[in-house]
Amino acid sequence: MAGQNSNLSCLLYGPHEAKFEDREVPGIRDPHDVVIRIAYVGVCGSDVHFWHHGGVGLKVSQDNPLTMGHEASGTIHSIGSSVKTLKIGDKVCIEPGLPCTRCKSCKSGRYNLCPDMAFAASPGPGPATHGCLCKYYRLTESFVYKLPSQVSLEEGVLVEPLAVAVHGSRLAGVKPGHRVVVFGAGPVGILSAAVARQFGAVEVISVDMNAARLDFVKGFAATGVFTPDANVDTDTNAAEIVKRFQLDRGADVVIEASGAEACIQMGIYVLAPGGTYVQTGCGKPNVMVPMTKLGEKEIVVKGAFRYGAGDFELAVGFLSDGQIDVKKLISKTVDFEEAPDAWESVGKGEGIKTLIRGVQD
Amino acid sequence: MAGQNSNLSCLLYGPHEAKFEDREVPGIRDPHDVVIRIAYVGVCGSDVHFWHHGGVGLKVSQDNPLTMGHEASGTIHSIGSSVKTLKIGDKVCIEPGLPCTRCKSCKSGRYNLCPDMAFAASPGPGPATHGCLCKYYRLTESFVYKLPSQVSLEEGVLVEPLAVAVHGSRLAGVKPGHRVVVFGAGPVGILSAAVARQFGAVEVISVDMNAARLDFVKGFAATGVFTPDANVDTDTNAAEIVKRFQLDRGADVVIEASGAEACIQMGIYVLAPGGTYVQTGCGKPNVMVPMTKLGEKEIVVKGAFRYGAGDFELAVGFLSDGQIDVKKLISKTVDFEEAPDAWESVGKGEGIKTLIRGVQD
Amino acid sequence: MAGQNSNLSCLLYGPHEAKFEDREVPGIRDPHDVVIRIAYVGVCGSDVHFWHHGGVGLKVSQDNPLTMGHEASGTIHSIGSSVKTLKIGDKVCIEPGLPCTRCKSCKSGRYNLCPDMAFAASPGPGPATHGCLCKYYRLTESFVYKLPSQVSLEEGVLVEPLAVAVHGSRLAGVKPGHRVVVFGAGPVGILSAAVARQFGAVEVISVDMNAARLDFVKGFAATGVFTPDANVDTDTNAAEIVKRFQLDRGADVVIEASGAEACIQMGIYVLAPGGTYVQTGCGKPNVMVPMTKLGEKEIVVKGAFRYGAGDFELAVGFLSDGQIDVKKLISKTVDFEEAPDAWESVGKGEGIKTLIRGVQD
Amino acid sequence: MAGQNSNLSCLLYGPHEAKFEDREVPGIRDPHDVVIRIAYVGVCGSDVHFWHHGGVGLKVSQDNPLTMGHEASGTIHSIGSSVKTLKIGDKVCIEPGLPCTRCKSCKSGRYNLCPDMAFAASPGPGPATHGCLCKYYRLTESFVYKLPSQVSLEEGVLVEPLAVAVHGSRLAGVKPGHRVVVFGAGPVGILSAAVARQFGAVEVISVDMNAARLDFVKGFAATGVFTPDANVDTDTNAAEIVKRFQLDRGADVVIEASGAEACIQMGIYVLAPGGTYVQTGCGKPNVMVPMTKLGEKEIVVKGAFRYGAGDFELAVGFLSDGQIDVKKLISKTVDFEEAPDAWESVGKGEGIKTLIRGVQD
Repeated sequence: MAGQNSNLSCLLYGPHEAKFEDREVPGIRDPHDVVIRIAYVGVCGSDVHFWHHGGVGLKVSQDNPLTMGHEASGTIHSIGSSVKTLKIGDKVCIEPGLPCTRCKSCKSGRYNLCPDMAFAASPGPGPATHGCLCKYYRLTESFVYKLPSQVSLEEGVLVEPLAVAVHGSRLAGVKPGHRVVVFGAGPVGILSAAVARQFGAVEVISVDMNAARLDFVKGFAATGVFTPDANVDTDTNAAEIVKRFQLDRGADVVIEASGAEACIQMGIYVLAPGGTYVQTGCGKPNVMVPMTKLGEKEIVVKGAFRYGAGDFELAVGFLSDGQIDVKKLISKTVDFEEAPDAWESVGKGEGIKTLIRGVQD
Repeated sequence: MAGQNSNLSCLLYGPHEAKFEDREVPGIRDPHDVVIRIAYVGVCGSDVHFWHHGGVGLKVSQDNPLTMGHEASGTIHSIGSSVKTLKIGDKVCIEPGLPCTRCKSCKSGRYNLCPDMAFAASPGPGPATHGCLCKYYRLTESFVYKLPSQVSLEEGVLVEPLAVAVHGSRLAGVKPGHRVVVFGAGPVGILSAAVARQFGAVEVISVDMNAARLDFVKGFAATGVFTPDANVDTDTNAAEIVKRFQLDRGADVVIEASGAEACIQMGIYVLAPGGTYVQTGCGKPNVMVPMTKLGEKEIVVKGAFRYGAGDFELAVGFLSDGQIDVKKLISKTVDFEEAPDAWESVGKGEGIKTLIRGVQD
Repeated sequence: MAGQNSNLSCLLYGPHEAKFEDREVPGIRDPHDVVIRIAYVGVCGSDVHFWHHGGVGLKVSQDNPLTMGHEASGTIHSIGSSVKTLKIGDKVCIEPGLPCTRCKSCKSGRYNLCPDMAFAASPGPGPATHGCLCKYYRLTESFVYKLPSQVSLEEGVLVEPLAVAVHGSRLAGVKPGHRVVVFGAGPVGILSAAVARQFGAVEVISVDMNAARLDFVKGFAATGVFTPDANVDTDTNAAEIVKRFQLDRGADVVIEASGAEACIQMGIYVLAPGGTYVQTGCGKPNVMVPMTKLGEKEIVVKGAFRYGAGDFELAVGFLSDGQIDVKKLISKTVDFEEAPDAWESVGKGEGIKTLIRGVQD
Repeated sequence: MAGQNSNLSCLLYGPHEAKFEDREVPGIRDPHDVVIRIAYVGVCGSDVHFWHHGGVGLKVSQDNPLTMGHEASGTIHSIGSSVKTLKIGDKVCIEPGLPCTRCKSCKSGRYNLCPDMAFAASPGPGPATHGCLCKYYRLTESFVYKLPSQVSLEEGVLVEPLAVAVHGSRLAGVKPGHRVVVFGAGPVGILSAAVARQFGAVEVISVDMNAARLDFVKGFAATGVFTPDANVDTDTNAAEIVKRFQLDRGADVVIEASGAEACIQMGIYVLAPGGTYVQTGCGKPNVMVPMTKLGEKEIVVKGAFRYGAGDFELAVGFLSDGQIDVKKLISKTVDFEEAPDAWESVGKGEGIKTLIRGVQD
């Protein structure tokens, strides 16, 4: 459908209104730029939210449509004159946000907190930052990561959610000997369990209401799983986790990847004094938190936002060694033109991770 | 009233039921023990709560009465054979909790999290751990701190709440150049503001609804004060603080010393991305927290419980140099036998810090 | 040879002068005490030094002989009334140093720096602190660690040197993705390589001049080994390591477990900017260090002294899961009465780890 | 001498061979660029070394001459279209090194370790990176810091060495209550003492052989000073410091700003167990270090290289509040054309800090 030099892209114009359009093929603008021929794009919960609501906070519009997509792999199509780490034809995955490099957050190594971050597929207050659900996508070399030969382009798409999980375990400071409870067994929760084990956790208990997801994570990474009893209080559920898995005074680390209020509360209750809690999941803006318990136990709660320096490198490393077999998470792969069907399907809770195939010649 | 060898003590038998009794004078039981002749005992909010309710959680009873008091200064009355750092007659203040020294928390330097902590004036699940509102009090050398000659015994009582403030600023990692917002201008809030400045904060904004307390803290330590508008949302109040005090993206550190739900919310909102929040105050068990904001900004929330290794030493140091003039906080001093009147008065919000004079010969 | 109630012990009276004597069987002195029937005692390089020189720094004498031994396993023979975590018959290993629990170092969780540490088999400035090369040995519960059923008493002896290795990797902050160079392939160097991998290191390069030891560590834990060229400079050797193992700008972490001056220098040279170096080995008191390089690269050098809070627990954990198969390090086991032969043999560099069997009935 | 549009610059062509040349006035090349009219340039020890030797490591040549100077203040002459934090006429000081923003070091917030750093006045392996001893100097906005109105342009020059001192105290983790020993009382040593106090050190002992410098630092920042006895060992001198200033087990922090081997050794000896040592000074490439002591005391030694994220901001802050009165360090100010005389004079040890006045119209 698309010619050699056209850049077929999938744009959102409003809720449930996607259009496939030929856009200009991006060229090399800066000597550190690379242009990537996109191979696969992953579907994330936020894509589904955009599909149904036209955005999160800021919305797309007829005047300001948005190319979707922020999880992607591909091959290097062209490179700028200063590019040293990549060459044409290399298999790569992308880190889909460009920080300004100039602000206090960037200079101090926390670029994910940059106020001028240009994150893929954001409607933006000004012009949209387009995403990677297109044929050709331009990025700067330092946010493009080469995949080793043994890692497939399908697997490469999973590097983005894996980097979210890496970021969480890093913030949590998971260390050898730790007992970790992970709330939520969606893609990020599953990968968080796997990463926690790579960081040396001896016990990783996954908690979810969905039996199929618990089955999956049990086979994939968790040393134990737990289904909360919806009829009892969150502290009772937490006490049951401590008892069943013999966690002494409680867990060393909690990674909350569900965003559910009940899980957030269980997370505080299940921790041992001095434990660390990381909020990776996103749910209601305001939740009821057992603050007195948090205080008495000197719990440390950390917000986790996307990923930062070194997270993609480590995620690629975990794939290279086969330590985390992300292929198992891929439930379905659809053609580029079927992107809206993929969003619908993921919105219905089908499968774990769905991929959209890039534009075919 | 009490003879040389008697140990007049003030015990609580139930809400509003205190008795003054002669108890046995404690002897040296271990070669590291010291016995202290108590000079002054401070009144803390928890004493008031005990007076009105008979305890917090666990309660006193007719069969299990409790000697009150956990903030105290005095002079060394007798010492065990192995005591090296103290001698008879030394002016001292006390750290009123004895950890077990054997558990994981103790061995790793976080003894305030010891599950077997014997904290002064606790009804306990088993026999009560009596407090220091008595004539003679026994403690082990390593939890008794010598006051330098220029520090009075009255000031020495303030070391305990000052250690709470030190613990908070330490957990918060307050550093030179930081802009800090302290919620609450009670004794701990006031001292937290003063300690934050000692840690190098260039701006310390104190927030309270009580104008008199704000006046006090403005003269004592804060570089700015703020009275929230009770008619607007907590995020609006936070935005007003950021704007009025030109905090750019927000405060570097929040120390929450009020326990009020509105302040807790304001605290999360007022922080810059990457900022640190410490919960020093105690309020409702469960509070509504803006979790999505906490996540997006990668806020770190830390519970603070009492004090730990080095906090008393540093608090004594701040007094020694006159860097923090705690005398100004002492509103009133009453006689030993007037302890219940002191609890009543503090319960009515009178003054900042009330002292109870020790038993006179 | 020794009766039920006798405590046959091996004492050093001077260089090459050991005597086997019946000493008093230790009793329970404190309710937290346990008495252990010693099963195996490991031979450490410091034992050999004592055997040849009568001590390190402080020396034994005819008037102040010393029971040798500080690496040991055994079974619980008797327990004090307050002991909760151990029962008679339990297999255990011991942490052979008792800190005071009272000083600044102890209270802040760095008890290995306690100035009043009573470490097993130390001639001491005052009375000797006897070691565990005897039939019965008393210790306090919190420094005795239960071995799980699947760990043998022979393996339990190796927990002590493994704890040294754990301490090193912890100080180094070894994390997933790190490339680590370990200098020295003696017992501690071998275990350091194994522990670094457990902490997530993707590359562990062991460096030694001894081909047999390199062979061993290659099969045991290292991903690569390197024999320095004694004819070239230490920076040239370091550059060769970087080149051969493709370490880009250098290693992330160095663990120096040889004490050799050349290795110390290579360690600084081989590190990437921002890297961490841990000095675990002990050699000459003063060594020539490339300080300008250390400064320019902002290297962090950390001294490591024995082990601290949590190190034994984690070491036992690594054995429990079979993650580190310490059995392979045990070269030889001799009878109790052959202890001096064991010291001689280890002094000649024979084997990796030699055990001395406890007193037999 | 120089016209409105000319850029008079002082270039080094070889040892003792400086030429004043008219160079092209730099223009705005990037929308974030600013061009600064240089007001004052400070003389640093490295300038003197360049003057005498033509460089450190890499050397200037007739074909590759170098504009000198890396400590400077000035006023904004012109700005690029995206510059937001500065406007024409603003008084500023400069951070004289531009990192690449793309490498692992830059992305993780340690840009001073960037391998592609373009540091002012470096001969470079390729074309020289020219310094700021000229009339007009171009830099990117994020490395130019506005001076508040109460700070003079003369004082602004001192921000650079003050940032070196800030970097040292930050790496050292100087905290309230610390006892710090600073070796060397040259400009960086003096400023290190002042910064350590701002970080809360209660004792700062400055050590130097030069009585005049000790006098200066005593009046400026140090709480005590010490002249080592050149006839005794470094450990004896260290023991004397501990004894004279009652440092108990030793200092908490050492900042070594002399580079002298004897001071480096004293620094290790004078520290308490668990203490931190920062190497800020630069001396011989290799020095003899008491490694066994370093190990036994678990000393942490950190190299410090220039300055990093936030160091200039904090240094400007210390000047703004008048907390550190850097004016007192300025011994002499010479005209632009007298730059070589300034290098000669500083090389002879005259004064503390000498400034070179910028080109006059």
